[in-house]
Amino acid sequence: MKLNIALLAGDGIGPEVIDQAVKVSDAIAKKFNHEITWKPALTGAAAIDAVGEPYPDETHDICVASDAVLFGAIGHPKYDNNPSATVRPEQGLLKMRKKLGLFANVRPTFTFPSLLDKSPLKRERIEGTDLVFLRELTGGIYFGEKGRRDEGETAFDNCVYTRAEVQRLAVKGFELAMTRSKKLCCVDKANVLETSRLWRETVQAMEKDYPEVEVTYEFVDAVAMRLVQWPNSYDVLITENLFGDILTDEASVISGSMGLMPSASVGTENALFEPIHGSYPQATGLNIANPMATVLSAAMMFENFGLQEEGKAIRAAVNKALDAGFVTEDLADGGKAYGTKEVGDWLAKNI
Amino acid sequence: MKLNIALLAGDGIGPEVIDQAVKVSDAIAKKFNHEITWKPALTGAAAIDAVGEPYPDETHDICVASDAVLFGAIGHPKYDNNPSATVRPEQGLLKMRKKLGLFANVRPTFTFPSLLDKSPLKRERIEGTDLVFLRELTGGIYFGEKGRRDEGETAFDNCVYTRAEVQRLAVKGFELAMTRSKKLCCVDKANVLETSRLWRETVQAMEKDYPEVEVTYEFVDAVAMRLVQWPNSYDVLITENLFGDILTDEASVISGSMGLMPSASVGTENALFEPIHGSYPQATGLNIANPMATVLSAAMMFENFGLQEEGKAIRAAVNKALDAGFVTEDLADGGKAYGTKEVGDWLAKNI
Ligand SMILES: CC(C)[C@H](C(=O)O)[C@@H](O)C(=O)O
Ligand SMILES: CC(C)[C@H](C(=O)O)[C@@H](O)C(=O)O
Repeated sequence: MKLNIALLAGDGIGPEVIDQAVKVSDAIAKKFNHEITWKPALTGAAAIDAVGEPYPDETHDICVASDAVLFGAIGHPKYDNNPSATVRPEQGLLKMRKKLGLFANVRPTFTFPSLLDKSPLKRERIEGTDLVFLRELTGGIYFGEKGRRDEGETAFDNCVYTRAEVQRLAVKGFELAMTRSKKLCCVDKANVLETSRLWRETVQAMEKDYPEVEVTYEFVDAVAMRLVQWPNSYDVLITENLFGDILTDEASVISGSMGLMPSASVGTENALFEPIHGSYPQATGLNIANPMATVLSAAMMFENFGLQEEGKAIRAAVNKALDAGFVTEDLADGGKAYGTKEVGDWLAKNI
Repeated sequence: MKLNIALLAGDGIGPEVIDQAVKVSDAIAKKFNHEITWKPALTGAAAIDAVGEPYPDETHDICVASDAVLFGAIGHPKYDNNPSATVRPEQGLLKMRKKLGLFANVRPTFTFPSLLDKSPLKRERIEGTDLVFLRELTGGIYFGEKGRRDEGETAFDNCVYTRAEVQRLAVKGFELAMTRSKKLCCVDKANVLETSRLWRETVQAMEKDYPEVEVTYEFVDAVAMRLVQWPNSYDVLITENLFGDILTDEASVISGSMGLMPSASVGTENALFEPIHGSYPQATGLNIANPMATVLSAAMMFENFGLQEEGKAIRAAVNKALDAGFVTEDLADGGKAYGTKEVGDWLAKNI
């Protein structure tokens, strides 16, 4: 296969972890006879510094022209304490999601047997956890009309959803559930919000098209609790943008392997793959960041092209590194810690 | 003191746990020479069944005429699977909060040494946790304009906050922080929402009036993570209605003592005290529900009247019962379990 991949390294540790994913992907290409052309492009604070815009048009054009986007991380401390600044890295992220039509954010949370003890939860609570959130990513309160009135004394944010937006996300949820244990949980706040009632009635109406899928409906506050109590009781969950933001992050720390969690954001035309961790500015340039989440994001990318064996080969290499203790300091647990680059080299060699 | 207390037992286990809180409060009244007049009133599914309305005007009048409201729980399974039903117990709750002006929901999460092992979190993560959420309760997306357009195909919910609404909640947060460790965390999503930017700028402007309080600002998704990772790193947190709904529930399961967590909802004129657990319909009438959260809510009620010793006496009785293992089955851990009523009697006797 010939693959054109846009490479958006971003800020902080982004470039370092992206480098390792490139290495590992190139090893895959070699082994499985693919040809990958990498197209680097600017984003985040790096793009603001260079051209005054966190998601420049040129970057967008490169993304659109590519078969997929591999993304590092964005965010820089100099923007952290001023959320009202007019140009911010996060705006680039939102603009990118919207312009690329990445309406479904796929966020798995799973455990690695060797890392179970890293979880803040007791082993018996976390064992066997393997869930996936599908978070709606281009609608809801993130993108509704927002502003001020009464001379700035009143602020508003409008949350809007159409039935079509709910349907296209829910279709992905039902389809994913069919490839797994056929359990789907729709997370909403239908006892309070009209948008949630639309979500619920839309999903309810789709149940008949997927008679094998067992659908449950839970309120977002109840899910926030059960994720801590019995994370392994969930399988596929679908939810709207803001609930998804909160719950996927909550879920990510439960596994104890946050530094290993990949994600995908997909639409009809485009797809983007990125680690769930942030730009971790304190670690920039120190060669200590864990590249595995980005490497596993590359695995999701191959799988999204239908290249299952390629994805499996990457996952196997990561498991092997974990078993062998060939890991960065966040996982070293007093043992020997390897550098970002060394872990990347090891993984590439073990493809 | 002469106290008129509206007694809203509600649904499910509500009446049973409320009975115990009344018993214990009466014991306090006797010991400390107060005179409590209880004014029972209908609410929830019980009120819908009786008069077709979950928060009848008559109940509201009783609440307004009282010095405080002691509340059990509401909700009944027959309303659970139909969030679009026009009359629902939850609507009563929202109407009550709004009409009584209960703008600040006070939700402590603390641990009991003897119950640490009940937490889904590892002991070293949870030990020492003692935090309080102040959740804004009468504004935001719960009460903004909501509805449908495009023949029902589009749904919207509007989130609105005024600076004055943020201020009155934040004042309570700063004041509470001053009585504790002087740490205040403002939880928002100021990188995305205009209402959150109003929250943040309003709280920032208030910092100078409380120079001793160290204020931090965190995004809601980050807090959802840190609550699971390091709950004991928090002290007082303030946040808007919907974030508060999700995060306070998440926090409540962290302690492992959810069945013991009380809460208060206060405004300028009125105050209401209730356990955070729900109506637990499956347990109704079985004399197995844990009354301690409701009893501790009564403690918060006395403290709110400035009657600190009375509150302390209740807390001491609860601690004593826990130490003595005089507990309901949720806490019995294989040991002997006592009934709801028996635990209530024991607590009243030990005042
Ligand atoms: C940075 C922020 C705008 C973003 C979001 O809220 O979507 C982030 O938290 C995420 O989840 O990707
Ligand atoms: C029942 C529901 C409307 C309510 C809320 O969301 O406020 C409940 O979850 C709570 O937190 O008291």
